[in-house]
Amino acid sequence: MPDVLTIGNALVDVLDHEDDDFLAAHDLVKGSMHLIDHARAEELYESMGPGIEVSGGCAANTAAGVVSFGGTAAFLGKVRDDQLGHVYQHDLSSAGVAVDIPMAPADHPEPTGRCLIMVTPDGERTLNTHLGIAAHVSVDDVDPAVVASAGLVYVEGYLWDMESTKDAIRKALDATAPGARFAFTLSDSFCVDRHHAEFVELAEERIDVLFANEAEITRLYEVDTFDQAIERVRRRRGISFVTCSEKGSVVVENGDTHAVEAHPVERVVDATGAGDLYAAGALYGLSIGADLPTCAQLGSLAAAEIISHLGARPQVSLRELADAAGLP
Amino acid sequence: MPDVLTIGNALVDVLDHEDDDFLAAHDLVKGSMHLIDHARAEELYESMGPGIEVSGGCAANTAAGVVSFGGTAAFLGKVRDDQLGHVYQHDLSSAGVAVDIPMAPADHPEPTGRCLIMVTPDGERTLNTHLGIAAHVSVDDVDPAVVASAGLVYVEGYLWDMESTKDAIRKALDATAPGARFAFTLSDSFCVDRHHAEFVELAEERIDVLFANEAEITRLYEVDTFDQAIERVRRRRGISFVTCSEKGSVVVENGDTHAVEAHPVERVVDATGAGDLYAAGALYGLSIGADLPTCAQLGSLAAAEIISHLGARPQVSLRELADAAGLP
Repeated sequence: MPDVLTIGNALVDVLDHEDDDFLAAHDLVKGSMHLIDHARAEELYESMGPGIEVSGGCAANTAAGVVSFGGTAAFLGKVRDDQLGHVYQHDLSSAGVAVDIPMAPADHPEPTGRCLIMVTPDGERTLNTHLGIAAHVSVDDVDPAVVASAGLVYVEGYLWDMESTKDAIRKALDATAPGARFAFTLSDSFCVDRHHAEFVELAEERIDVLFANEAEITRLYEVDTFDQAIERVRRRRGISFVTCSEKGSVVVENGDTHAVEAHPVERVVDATGAGDLYAAGALYGLSIGADLPTCAQLGSLAAAEIISHLGARPQVSLRELADAAGLP
Repeated sequence: MPDVLTIGNALVDVLDHEDDDFLAAHDLVKGSMHLIDHARAEELYESMGPGIEVSGGCAANTAAGVVSFGGTAAFLGKVRDDQLGHVYQHDLSSAGVAVDIPMAPADHPEPTGRCLIMVTPDGERTLNTHLGIAAHVSVDDVDPAVVASAGLVYVEGYLWDMESTKDAIRKALDATAPGARFAFTLSDSFCVDRHHAEFVELAEERIDVLFANEAEITRLYEVDTFDQAIERVRRRRGISFVTCSEKGSVVVENGDTHAVEAHPVERVVDATGAGDLYAAGALYGLSIGADLPTCAQLGSLAAAEIISHLGARPQVSLRELADAAGLP
């Protein structure tokens, strides 16, 4: 009976520090997520310096964040029965997330997914995802009873990159309990471009709680400025959280708009997971019935913690940080 | 033709933060290395929180440090053809270390070795090593030509824990070039206890360059105080580097004694690798013909870098740090 069920790609992050020249030499767009195949993953990994491996995946990071605030969360995603698959399962369940992770047999040709992440000196991160078995979440992996037990079902837009996972999400949507809310993140501006028509339809028809950053929301509404995008957001039904890095975030419900400042950060070490953890704070806030500005503040608080260190899972208790900040 | 060849256990470190109660609950002696079997590794891992995986292994850390100073280094150790084995090989070779890593076939029952490391709030680390395939370095894995090409051959005392690896080391010792130096670290005070008679004999008869910390050297000479141990060290032939945490280190050659202060550290985050990197600096210094106090200073500099962050491989160029400190 989790407050929040998140569904997304189960990915082990492989992080290293690289400079801008590395990105240029490998045709990588800074700050974006590139979907790569096995051969490209091997080639990029070969070029990278020594890395650290840490469990990631946007929706799973969000689930870990909800738990760190004191909420309950479950995650649905897929790994293979291999070393990284077991690491992934361990890290999430030991973080207190109820794991619903189907494990493909060890001899499946697709390994546990990896995301090669180059962190540049400005703290920005550039993602290169080899989905592997993560892309094989199928309708058979979705247990309607688990979905129906959640008050909020949160799905990452990245899942639209595979037809099979799309079907799984549609099944999850159909299984959502009456009164439960469907939350969705646009994930990445290129992801918005890839699935533009479907995302527009989802945003208008199905999504109760929308998460987007500045680049994603302007692409979704095909407008030039943040303000124009917010104008469009004000006309959508439901709740929208739109983040704008160090400028803070805006939360809108049925035309009501609240701007919330970013939480101060001493030094941005690694932006990986900022959006995921913002969503964690906001979803946790919604799950306890907090008002929208408070939800946005919880999101900002969690995002600030995550960008102050390497890796996209909280290293300290978000509950304690929230208490210290006088947040619920 | 490396300046330094290091031989040791190839281990992927799995680090997490735990408190002293966790150590007590699992009968772990803070600051020590515990050899554990597969069942115990699974049990401990199950209890640990979410971790990060990063390539480690004492001798390999030392090799990475030598390269970071601008020297050349090779590493001999063994992994399995599995995900962590490939990660291990990648991390070391991309750090610039010439890797001589025999890879056991994927269906070998022993996996790539792991070291479960609990970092307590005081920055101390407690190691739990499941050697796996690392313990299977055999005489067949030692290429006498590679050994004969190195000016310094550095071996970790931990290798004495397996009879088979002992034989491999003896073969390496026999293959050492005339004029090349044999360096050895006592590794851990419990390791000294386990192999006391052999370590005493090695220290008196074979080791040209000895590395030990305070606990290890007092156990080796069965004395009560650091000063008594140094008295005994002054009587040994060859060079001895004895470290004493924040109190600095002492280097002795044929009775000549030099004390060197520890390099200042703003905050000790994780002591993992301090000894390994001290050895890296000292060995690099020896390889370029630096005088002994300078070698010790290079060691202190490298140790200070490594304890200021999680993980036991340098995150910045030790060459640049040495330049900034006016060291060769």
